[in-house]
Amino acid sequence: VRDERAPGDRHLADPTGASDAGVSHLALGPGAEFDLVRALAGRWGSVARGLGDDCAVLDVPAGERVVVSTDTTVEGVHFRPAWLTPREIGYRAAMGAWSDLAAAAATPIGALLALSIPQQWVASMPDLADGIGEAGRLVGAPVVGGDTTAGTTLVITMTVLGTAAHPLTRAGAQPGDRVYVTGTLGGPWAAIRAWERSETPDGSSRARFARPEARLREARWLAARGISAAIDISDGLVGDLGHIAAASSVRVVIDLDCVPRWPGVAAVDAGASGEEYELALTSPVAIDSVAFAREFALPLTQIGNVVAGPPTVDVLVDGHRVDPIPGYDHLSR
Amino acid sequence: VRDERAPGDRHLADPTGASDAGVSHLALGPGAEFDLVRALAGRWGSVARGLGDDCAVLDVPAGERVVVSTDTTVEGVHFRPAWLTPREIGYRAAMGAWSDLAAAAATPIGALLALSIPQQWVASMPDLADGIGEAGRLVGAPVVGGDTTAGTTLVITMTVLGTAAHPLTRAGAQPGDRVYVTGTLGGPWAAIRAWERSETPDGSSRARFARPEARLREARWLAARGISAAIDISDGLVGDLGHIAAASSVRVVIDLDCVPRWPGVAAVDAGASGEEYELALTSPVAIDSVAFAREFALPLTQIGNVVAGPPTVDVLVDGHRVDPIPGYDHLSR
Repeated sequence: VRDERAPGDRHLADPTGASDAGVSHLALGPGAEFDLVRALAGRWGSVARGLGDDCAVLDVPAGERVVVSTDTTVEGVHFRPAWLTPREIGYRAAMGAWSDLAAAAATPIGALLALSIPQQWVASMPDLADGIGEAGRLVGAPVVGGDTTAGTTLVITMTVLGTAAHPLTRAGAQPGDRVYVTGTLGGPWAAIRAWERSETPDGSSRARFARPEARLREARWLAARGISAAIDISDGLVGDLGHIAAASSVRVVIDLDCVPRWPGVAAVDAGASGEEYELALTSPVAIDSVAFAREFALPLTQIGNVVAGPPTVDVLVDGHRVDPIPGYDHLSR
Repeated sequence: VRDERAPGDRHLADPTGASDAGVSHLALGPGAEFDLVRALAGRWGSVARGLGDDCAVLDVPAGERVVVSTDTTVEGVHFRPAWLTPREIGYRAAMGAWSDLAAAAATPIGALLALSIPQQWVASMPDLADGIGEAGRLVGAPVVGGDTTAGTTLVITMTVLGTAAHPLTRAGAQPGDRVYVTGTLGGPWAAIRAWERSETPDGSSRARFARPEARLREARWLAARGISAAIDISDGLVGDLGHIAAASSVRVVIDLDCVPRWPGVAAVDAGASGEEYELALTSPVAIDSVAFAREFALPLTQIGNVVAGPPTVDVLVDGHRVDPIPGYDHLSR
């Protein structure tokens, strides 16, 4: 993590009071301006590696390619501070980024974290770092670098790197493929709806919003069985299947009644629900959903098929084709 | 570049009116929300590659390692909008990130761009993209992905990737090494001083601030000749040498009178001047500065030595040791 001193960031110094002892390997130059970096690294422990240089160096196994993605979380755009704890904000920002690597069936190797930090967020940085560190531990990859600056709005940009011999993309779907989705959709939708009505979401739908899990192991399991395209449905199932349809130049036909849904969530809402971080995928072969569920304690459900035709998503509900479902608009709906 | 729809970003749609024709390979899903991505890619042309997927895939030559760095530029922190054109802001944000790869003597392979865009900046995005594209053309690497969000302050996070068989770090300096610096220091300092006095900087010092050049080719030339450590001095010569001293556990002794300086810039100010994007480096062997200057039309100057001792930088001016020179504080000095 590279610290850039900036107006006001004297106040960024040492928000944790963390001892230098645990992070002496950082070997940054003198000056209070690096205390935040030291403090974050101290919270991360073994989930941080090699911080302090402007660059991080990572190894790629022979025969594999680098898969990289960047994901920005902005206060007020992707979350409202009142909804989540700082730790959850950090966890969610990180796990959302890792989820992009799941869509490629990549194995995480490291992350870079760029933070733009307003004064009123400084005291929350250690908790936020804990959430980012927890996500890193779950996916098995360290924070290897970053940049911290002052700012007027909390902006968290996570860049995640992984490797894969044959990365999955959106572009591999073929007519005749089956369409699958992992998990149960609509939990985040139910949580956001409750918050927007000034109600308190129930714990399990809140957890679906606050504590997503990138389907990394699941994706590698599926890739090993020959699936042809995948996407994480952070922007909603129907909208994100539209990206597979466009990139693969195929028509995707799905029946939303087949989609496992959160209690009380209508089929069309499950199709539009964002922030899901489940995977939608296409496969030329039938996938053993029972074996998948046994391995991951998660449903894998066939919801449709890929056919030849213009790149669109045809959506059925109650046997009738419904109008295009709008993509998930984050908090602007 | 991944677009995330966000409050207000209907207004992000199609700021350029760029035709889809040139970017039809993007194959994003339908919807105006992806028009910004299309527009940016249209400006970049061949400097963009594979945009539209959540992930980018990059190849690493056999025997090489991945070098990665992230760099955030914040309006009001790293530049004042009145000082620079949008194109210069984009160029400078990108080139500053590429400069981190120069310190590792890496060869650029691609960049990810995360933009948090306030409404009042939307119309400037095509020009800003042009500057980022120009920097990419100069260093020979495409924009391969990113993320766009709404925001209240313009925040540009560039993550840059390169490869190197043996990346340089800050940690290789040894007692007995010589200390060198590339270029002539103090130009950005002179420009900022003029702006802060509400004067107009002369064109050449303004260009040193607005149009830095990452010393990528220079660094690879130097690495091939056996230098031991390097850093780009974006935070100022003395401050950044402090990072080499700390990471290498050595004492660095330099004479600021040896540093080539911009006209009218005092030695101590040249030592503190930030935003330079020149390289400071250490070498166990004497480097042929004449050959370097012939190759790159740029001075390479020995300014001191590495000695055993506690990790500090001893600075001489007029033959006297001066107190520690504060690092460059971006705009907070």
